[in-house]
Parts: sequence; structure tokens; C-alpha cells
Amino acid sequence: MTDQPEPNPDQAAYRAAVVDLLGVLALAELTAFERLAEDAKLAPTLADKAEVAQMAVAEFHHFEQLRRRLAELGIDAEVAMTPFRDALARFHDRTVPNDWYESLVKAYVGDRLAGDFYREIANVLDPVTRDLVVGTVEKGEQAKFIVGRVRAAISEDPRLGGRLALWARRLMGEALTQAQRVVADRDALSALLAGGIDRPSIDLATIGRMFARLTDRHAARMAEVGLDS
Amino acid sequence: MTDQPEPNPDQAAYRAAVVDLLGVLALAELTAFERLAEDAKLAPTLADKAEVAQMAVAEFHHFEQLRRRLAELGIDAEVAMTPFRDALARFHDRTVPNDWYESLVKAYVGDRLAGDFYREIANVLDPVTRDLVVGTVEKGEQAKFIVGRVRAAISEDPRLGGRLALWARRLMGEALTQAQRVVADRDALSALLAGGIDRPSIDLATIGRMFARLTDRHAARMAEVGLDS
Repeated sequence: MTDQPEPNPDQAAYRAAVVDLLGVLALAELTAFERLAEDAKLAPTLADKAEVAQMAVAEFHHFEQLRRRLAELGIDAEVAMTPFRDALARFHDRTVPNDWYESLVKAYVGDRLAGDFYREIANVLDPVTRDLVVGTVEKGEQAKFIVGRVRAAISEDPRLGGRLALWARRLMGEALTQAQRVVADRDALSALLAGGIDRPSIDLATIGRMFARLTDRHAARMAEVGLDS
Repeated sequence: MTDQPEPNPDQAAYRAAVVDLLGVLALAELTAFERLAEDAKLAPTLADKAEVAQMAVAEFHHFEQLRRRLAELGIDAEVAMTPFRDALARFHDRTVPNDWYESLVKAYVGDRLAGDFYREIANVLDPVTRDLVVGTVEKGEQAKFIVGRVRAAISEDPRLGGRLALWARRLMGEALTQAQRVVADRDALSALLAGGIDRPSIDLATIGRMFARLTDRHAARMAEVGLDS
């Protein structure tokens, strides 16, 4: 996609797509904050509770950055987020963790998937939006904590590994289901994801290939954590 | 209490009391984070949800400051917090908000009560601990948001005022009940609250008078918000 023209932030269609993108990411971060903070009650110790709380707070600070950018564009965050409310609520309602380890795996899968997605779309974005989006990628500290905990628990109880592998697969399936709905509903955003707003038609096959790459990377990552997906 | 000697942070009894104090405050902040973040689901709009999330995040950053100070004293925060786990869990379990307004009033009462308490104990603390504790007092932005929302809702539905006044009274009652238990259980902390560790005996009447002052200030504040307590 390197032969693409640089996106023009003043173009109406590009602008609409970026507002959608910032809106869905802002709501994803705010919802991740909320659900993760709620999952803190599953933590076995107060120190673990503080770790999960820390992750939730990091998501909230990402939300604040995205909201600030929307305000710079003259858009109320609530307006930008509202179209994605149902998709995110459905995702979370269908993936309520049953215990501490499911909560950790969900946080890990969500953060890594977000990171992959941000890198996928970076080259269809203008520099300001790109820096903002890539800047919200989790830096690996949380991942280190989670992977350590999950590996230790699986080595003590190998059956847990099987259950968490199924759980991770379900998380990925639900995430893709909701993402497909969003793509189907939001034309400007879909056009952007398909490789740029200047393309004459929305290329759903391109988006399909992106989802396939995200799924492959998820599977490779799960194998690293010791969870065959 | 101005004729008191400056507390000596190297004295073992004083140190034990300060570890207790930082422990209970740290757990109060961490628990407030958790419960408030959970209450975010009651928010009627995404913007309101973000406001409540912001309050929760502020509590978490207070927790971080207190944990850092405990670490400087060579104490693991989990160890310092554990003795207060039951009292805080009981308080929150008995004061689960039924709706958005109860959640707002709970956040307001909790923050203001904490502020009053911090000012009450400031002069029995060494300067480092005092600055830390007083520095975590909420600066009034959250209060402004909450008071505005609650007043507007009561003017639309006066019956809500009666319900929230009862709710605020219950919050204060539960807070005092759990505080009395903590005082009864933790001798060094009680001695500190009673006016300093150097006093020969624990003066429970002094603590009783402090609780009475906190209750009076709570009542005066509720009247200002339009809630007769």
C-alpha cells in the first residue's frame, strides 16, 4: 500500500472515516476500562487487584487522548462513540470472564489485537491520527505480567490450558463477529480500512484479508503463551 | 493540639500507626476505584460514564501515591492493606448504589468525608505523611459536577431528594460503623487518632468527638446540596 497518496485530512469522506475510527477506538478504550475495572473483583490478592486496576487506568488514559483529538476536530466524543455502542456492548456481554485467568487472557487478547489492528491501519492515516493511534499501543509491561501469571497457572494445572485456549478462540470469534458488523454498517470507515478513501469502491476482500492476518497473528501469539488456538 | 510534640517517624509505635493509616487509606482508594468504575455502568450517557471513570482513575492515582510511600518505608502495600479488607468490603457491600444518583451521592459523600478526615488528622502526622495525605484530597472539580447533576435532578423530581437524603444518611452510618470497628481493632492507629502516640492512654472520647465533628460537617454539607440529613 506504499504507492497510495497521502490521505488528506480536509477531505470530507476521509474526515468522516477518521471520526468513526477515533469514535470506535475511544469507546473501545472506555469500555475496556469499565470491564477491566469490574474484573478487578476476580483478583486473588490485593496486589493482583492493583495490577488489573493499573491496566484499566491505562485504557482510560488512551480514551482521554482519543477524546482530546476528537475535540480538536470539533467533534463531541459522545456523538462519535454512539454508533458503536451496541457492537461493543454485545462483544463484552458475550465474553464476561468467569474467573481471574479468563479476565487476564481477555485483557491480553484485546490489547494485542488492538496493537495489530493499529499497525494494520497506520499507513492509511494522516500523520497526526497515525501517531495518536500508534501511541496508544500497550508497551508490553502488562503483557509480561499476564503471560507470567497464565504460564505459571497452566504449569500447575494443565487442564486450565485447554479451557483458556477455548476461551481465547471464543474471544477472537466474538471480536471478528462484531468487527464485521461495524464494517457492514459504516461505509466511510470501511472504505478507509479497505485501503484508503480515494479508492473507487469498497474492497471487502481487502478487509477480509486483514481480518485473516489478525487471526493468524492471534493464533501464533496464543501458541507462544502456551495456548493452542 | 498545637502544644503537641512533633511526631517522630523513627519511633516504632508511631511508625506502626502510620503504616496502618497509609494501609487503610490505600485500600480505601483502591476499593473506591473499583466500586466507582463498576458504578460507571449506571451512567445514563457515555459522557457521564467518562466522568465517573475519571473520578475512579483519580482515586487510583491516590492509591499509587500511598503505595509508593509505603514502599519507601519498606512495607509491601498488600501487607499494610490486608487488616482493613473486611471493614472496607462490608462498607461497600452494604452501600451498593441502586442507580446513577445514588452512585454520584456516594462518590461525593466519600470524597468529602475523606477530605474532612485528612484535615482532622493532619496535625498528628509528620510533615512527609501529612503532605501526602492532604495532597490526595479531591480538589473540587468532581464535587462541582456531582452537585450540579444532583441539584438538577432533584428540581425535576423532588421525591428523589427525599430518597437521596436517606441514602446519604445510610452511607454516613455505615462509614461510622466500620470506622469504629477499625478503631477498636487497631491500637496504634487509634492512639494516633486520639491525639498522638506519645499520650499515655488511648483516649476514645477524643476519637468519639472527632466522629461527631465529621458527622456535623457531613450534615451541613448535605443541606448545601439540598439533601436534609
